[in-house]
Amino acid sequence: MNQKNYILWDNSGWIVNVKSFLPDYLAKTESVFCQGNGRLGLRAVTEESYCGMVRNMFVNGTFNRFSENEVTELPNLPDMTAFEIYINGHSFSLLKGNFLDYTLSLNLYNGKLKREFIWISPEQHKFKMVFERFVSMTERDLVGMKISITPLNCDCEVLIKTGIDGQMTNSGSQHFEEGESCVLPGNILQMCSKTTNSDVFVVNQVNLESYIDGWRIEKPFSVTIGRRKITAKGEYVLSPKQTLSIEKLALVITSRDIYFDGKQNRPSTYYKTYAETRGGHIFNNNFDFHFGQSEKTWKKVWNEIDIEISASSNRDQTFLRFAMYHLMIMTDIKDSRMGIGAKGLSGEGYKGHSFWDTEIFIMPFFLFTQPDVARIILSYRGKSLPGAYAKAKKYGYKGAMFPWESAWLDDGEVTPDWGGTDIVTGKAMEILTGHLEQHISADIAFAIYQYYVATDDTSFMEQFGYEIVLGTAEFWLSRIEIDAEGIGHINDVIGPDEYKEHVNDNAFTNHLVFHNLAVAEEFYDTLMQNNSTLLDKLVEKTNFNIDKCREIKEKLYLPQVNSQGLMEQFEGYFNLSEIDLTKYKNASTVGNIYNDYNMKMLSQIKVSKQADTLLLMLLLENVFPEECKKKNYYYYEAKTLHDSSLSKCSHSILAADIGLLDEAYKFFKEGMLTDFGDNLLSSDEGIHSACMGGIWQSVVMGFGGIRIAEEGLRINPVLPKEWNSLKFSIYWRGIRTEISINGKNITVKNEGNKSLNFSHRGQEYWLEPRKKLVFYSNNERE
Amino acid sequence: MNQKNYILWDNSGWIVNVKSFLPDYLAKTESVFCQGNGRLGLRAVTEESYCGMVRNMFVNGTFNRFSENEVTELPNLPDMTAFEIYINGHSFSLLKGNFLDYTLSLNLYNGKLKREFIWISPEQHKFKMVFERFVSMTERDLVGMKISITPLNCDCEVLIKTGIDGQMTNSGSQHFEEGESCVLPGNILQMCSKTTNSDVFVVNQVNLESYIDGWRIEKPFSVTIGRRKITAKGEYVLSPKQTLSIEKLALVITSRDIYFDGKQNRPSTYYKTYAETRGGHIFNNNFDFHFGQSEKTWKKVWNEIDIEISASSNRDQTFLRFAMYHLMIMTDIKDSRMGIGAKGLSGEGYKGHSFWDTEIFIMPFFLFTQPDVARIILSYRGKSLPGAYAKAKKYGYKGAMFPWESAWLDDGEVTPDWGGTDIVTGKAMEILTGHLEQHISADIAFAIYQYYVATDDTSFMEQFGYEIVLGTAEFWLSRIEIDAEGIGHINDVIGPDEYKEHVNDNAFTNHLVFHNLAVAEEFYDTLMQNNSTLLDKLVEKTNFNIDKCREIKEKLYLPQVNSQGLMEQFEGYFNLSEIDLTKYKNASTVGNIYNDYNMKMLSQIKVSKQADTLLLMLLLENVFPEECKKKNYYYYEAKTLHDSSLSKCSHSILAADIGLLDEAYKFFKEGMLTDFGDNLLSSDEGIHSACMGGIWQSVVMGFGGIRIAEEGLRINPVLPKEWNSLKFSIYWRGIRTEISINGKNITVKNEGNKSLNFSHRGQEYWLEPRKKLVFYSNNERE
Repeated sequence: MNQKNYILWDNSGWIVNVKSFLPDYLAKTESVFCQGNGRLGLRAVTEESYCGMVRNMFVNGTFNRFSENEVTELPNLPDMTAFEIYINGHSFSLLKGNFLDYTLSLNLYNGKLKREFIWISPEQHKFKMVFERFVSMTERDLVGMKISITPLNCDCEVLIKTGIDGQMTNSGSQHFEEGESCVLPGNILQMCSKTTNSDVFVVNQVNLESYIDGWRIEKPFSVTIGRRKITAKGEYVLSPKQTLSIEKLALVITSRDIYFDGKQNRPSTYYKTYAETRGGHIFNNNFDFHFGQSEKTWKKVWNEIDIEISASSNRDQTFLRFAMYHLMIMTDIKDSRMGIGAKGLSGEGYKGHSFWDTEIFIMPFFLFTQPDVARIILSYRGKSLPGAYAKAKKYGYKGAMFPWESAWLDDGEVTPDWGGTDIVTGKAMEILTGHLEQHISADIAFAIYQYYVATDDTSFMEQFGYEIVLGTAEFWLSRIEIDAEGIGHINDVIGPDEYKEHVNDNAFTNHLVFHNLAVAEEFYDTLMQNNSTLLDKLVEKTNFNIDKCREIKEKLYLPQVNSQGLMEQFEGYFNLSEIDLTKYKNASTVGNIYNDYNMKMLSQIKVSKQADTLLLMLLLENVFPEECKKKNYYYYEAKTLHDSSLSKCSHSILAADIGLLDEAYKFFKEGMLTDFGDNLLSSDEGIHSACMGGIWQSVVMGFGGIRIAEEGLRINPVLPKEWNSLKFSIYWRGIRTEISINGKNITVKNEGNKSLNFSHRGQEYWLEPRKKLVFYSNNERE
Repeated sequence: MNQKNYILWDNSGWIVNVKSFLPDYLAKTESVFCQGNGRLGLRAVTEESYCGMVRNMFVNGTFNRFSENEVTELPNLPDMTAFEIYINGHSFSLLKGNFLDYTLSLNLYNGKLKREFIWISPEQHKFKMVFERFVSMTERDLVGMKISITPLNCDCEVLIKTGIDGQMTNSGSQHFEEGESCVLPGNILQMCSKTTNSDVFVVNQVNLESYIDGWRIEKPFSVTIGRRKITAKGEYVLSPKQTLSIEKLALVITSRDIYFDGKQNRPSTYYKTYAETRGGHIFNNNFDFHFGQSEKTWKKVWNEIDIEISASSNRDQTFLRFAMYHLMIMTDIKDSRMGIGAKGLSGEGYKGHSFWDTEIFIMPFFLFTQPDVARIILSYRGKSLPGAYAKAKKYGYKGAMFPWESAWLDDGEVTPDWGGTDIVTGKAMEILTGHLEQHISADIAFAIYQYYVATDDTSFMEQFGYEIVLGTAEFWLSRIEIDAEGIGHINDVIGPDEYKEHVNDNAFTNHLVFHNLAVAEEFYDTLMQNNSTLLDKLVEKTNFNIDKCREIKEKLYLPQVNSQGLMEQFEGYFNLSEIDLTKYKNASTVGNIYNDYNMKMLSQIKVSKQADTLLLMLLLENVFPEECKKKNYYYYEAKTLHDSSLSKCSHSILAADIGLLDEAYKFFKEGMLTDFGDNLLSSDEGIHSACMGGIWQSVVMGFGGIRIAEEGLRINPVLPKEWNSLKFSIYWRGIRTEISINGKNITVKNEGNKSLNFSHRGQEYWLEPRKKLVFYSNNERE
């Protein structure tokens, strides 16, 4: 279902909004306008309730497993956003009566969500209603809400019911045991609960204040404690034009919070007491104060990460910022015990699990804008090594085999066993990725190497980086099968193209594995020279065998292009049959091919869900000449349905690399519109995290031409004709560097205090601190 | 919140309906219009969804405990009632557009729920919509649904989504692990699930058919399997005046079903296969066929139980039938492994638990109309004896101490520990009834004796009856405390009046215990004479000691009336303070006193939640002379808030007994209107089961004057001035007896084949089969 121009932008370049209320498609704005701070994520649900809405609030890392049948997931916390509003005895709903001037807006610059309209009741009474909300970037356990109601042409009685609702589930699975609920002095509501299995203790705490025309009302609330629910009720009488404001400050504390140092097994009273003290501190100030504090933090963030695009429309500028906003709110920048969910903290989709999306699609944003956060992100993999060792062992391998889906550090592999309906059998389809989509181990090693090159962060490398690379290399050494001719194969895998299960010698996988082994060799040699004590320890821990590595690396079969210059996606791909894909390529929604073909049938057809061979050519760009990339681009793109949100950005960057600027812009735009565009159903279970990273990558690595190349930093910008200019900053080995491109020039400015080394169109440059270099831009190249 | 004349009746005396749709008060009709067959209960939810609705479906006996923190409860099963209806692309809701001629009706005679109206869409298109539903009385696992949509002034596209939704919870607690969902041949949807703790396996199975103008549409449905959800989607195009009908037959099978003989631990495939075979059988026929079968069974039921009231309004006639309808759908008349829930199967309230309501308030209906069901009901207590022995042991007593709240046979005491909010402390109140409200053991013994007298069913007595009475007697013998003066006390209890905790020598309790001991003595003597083998066995099992019983029974303190003729409710009651109760007596909702007083404070005031001393005088009527009853009636009624639905019917019957006919009618009417009246919030969590029994008792035992007296059956009818006549039938020792009363005469007709012995106004009569006796009625007495 599409709605033209649903999500709009304004002249500021900072505000996204929608002007219509679509009760059948609530999930769209709930997901896309969600708020958060990396620790806490909150869907942009309306205060009043509608059928089909999903009130999700998550705190990163609080994973729990409902039953042995299910995998661990991020539990939906007790809700604090719901307000029942009764006006003159009738519950308020936008489905009743009528409304004017509806706007739901999200200010990306300060994180405020605002909904306002004039409601005309069935009795023709008019009410100005404003709803504001923020998730604090400063106080990471705080959500602030404010409701303002002004009767415009009548007296009215208003009754408000709100509190804490612990009846929430994850699509029916209840992760919490009900704990104590009570009213604390000062009319503060408190609810305690504990996850059923992982023993995460949660305290929700709420403070309510009400004002009429700015005058605080004393004690208007009475409280009821029900099952998994504590509700305050306030009643007010308003004259025409009087404004009632209800402010609700809501805290959520969990025993997994970073300041509890991982010591989770304290008595529950410890957390209750902590929460009460914290409440005493936070509830001393009001909505506006806390919003101001949060705004300040957002301002600092934007100073670091902002990108400026000048174009005839503000859309790309605004939506790029929207993507960066999402990258910031989905990522816990302080706590390395949790990954980044494939839907961030914006919905129940993928259960809060982390995939390779993190390293390949999201990490580059942080690596280039906030390298300390990139370290946090990669440290999560370091801390997850025990699970990776355990997984390898479980499948009879050695070394570190990373889980395809990851949750809490010691959860190990958490990919569910069953997925959507098989069109042929009518039963749920078995999900094989947990076992077969093994390239993630090489992807993580790839990201480590990128981080290593871009930061020179030896401390991280010694703590985690080397071990991850040697551990994953050792896994591959045990994984590669040497055939009778002495050739090494990696059989029975799933590559990035998930339409193909049980394939042998997937080009992407084999090449990335080769890279993994090569980096292991390089690190081994470096450590042998610089830190043999550490090397000994790591060899003992990972069982990495350098001789075996050198030997098997040489034997590993590395698929090469054929006589037509085409790389076979996996062994036998070229023998598959072709079908007319027009219907699926033109479909407005994804996954339609599953309506006609099941997984077994898909394996027999030349059709890709997403970039696979092309992604290989993007990541290991130096291995493949431009001509080869071009040929394969034309060949594979025609067979790709882009049914994964990871696909379009990869195509965009590769297209920019090979000079297909219109294609590059088209895929950038389509990638950007995955969540922000007209498809009202694309984001039901949350936004596409990797896609947000992909939007940024399309801009900075595609058009901006930034790449971590063999020779170091490469800066090859190309401006699409739709833009007048592009300006962004990156960090390279600690040096902040500003790159700006317009129709005429490319300017590289060293804003750091060391000299910067980079290449541009094959030429190497050294740029001193505070200096800049200006090149002609591509538009002038001809 | 009240709505005058919300539930209406018609001329037939069989149909109840509402003519307005109140989205803020959905629970009222959901509970009161609920459907069932004693095994399965289904709230009368609308097909389309509204916020605040509670889609509850229960199967009796499938108890599960969500966690150690919670008590076992009847789990809310996967829903099969929800239909998403999209008309021309927009979801249908009564909140959108407008509607005309709305009627929701329940036909008590055949159990059909029907909702019909003309919907005017926001585009001013008109649609005639009819929704029909039954829960089969014949096939106890079957629910039938039918939706009919006719566009009146437009073409339209209709999209229907419906299936099985396992995301249901009990106010947030999820009792099921998700099992396999699949599509069976013939487009039958199947969902399996299993309770998390009690391992009850559940199969939901649904068959869908669609018709346009009666012509069956082949295979219109496509199916999606999601998390805990399987959904079929059908799309149709209608011309003006064409009628689309969707029929949905829904089965729910559980491993606790009676035909599985309690062998619950079969492999899940056993139940799946059973369900598939059952589906093959049931789905061979359509909605109309199965509805017809169910109607036939209902007809048989009404032939047995119906009561005729003639009055100027049909209200009392219809609502009395409504009460009997509820008594029938809440009671499993075949399976004695489960009790009757305090809310029947009509809502989550009281978690499906059984209380003394069953024996004292509900059982008499069955005892007099379907004595074989009364046996089933009492057998449940017999089968629960192990839990009663265990509970006594737990508290350091002997014999059988019945749980205050009961669930599955071996669950024992299941009263929750915590309830509503304490107004003073702001915390949840501790619930003490599980430990202290001990009179239930004597109440059960009382009911056994009533059954014994009214049926002469030696077989039941030998199976369970004697053991229950001797076991409970033995409990009391260990419970009674003999003081220094040699007087026996029962200290620290809660009597029927639950405003008073920790009281000593509650008159109701002590007198009922005395009765229990007396009956035990009588049974002991009977058995000694007739069946000493059984007696030996029972004495060994219950440890009942006849000598101790005789001794302690004589020592037990039996409160007597004081010089003013008043019986003290418990020791020290007369010293309590009095407050002005006008505010609470006049309140339109119950429980208001908790807003001002907490339990501790209530214990200090002369205020009763419900009949306590008066109920004693009603149950043990021969112990107390009429004058005594009158005095105490005036004294205690003035201090009673009737905050329990058990209260009004007791007052009504007692008032009828003592000749206060207007009072009797007033309390009958108020009791009847507890659920059926204008208070829209009284039935949120389900109907009041005991109250349904109370309505029947007010009619048959109050005005009908039927009583199991010391001398046997007593028939002392008194007709309230509001009625012209009353006619009902009862069974007495196997003899069906018709009693009819009008302004002139009382006619007693023996319809059995044995002679009937009864008393009327102190005179004993023998009535031969097929004969009748006519007396002057009370209206003629003067």
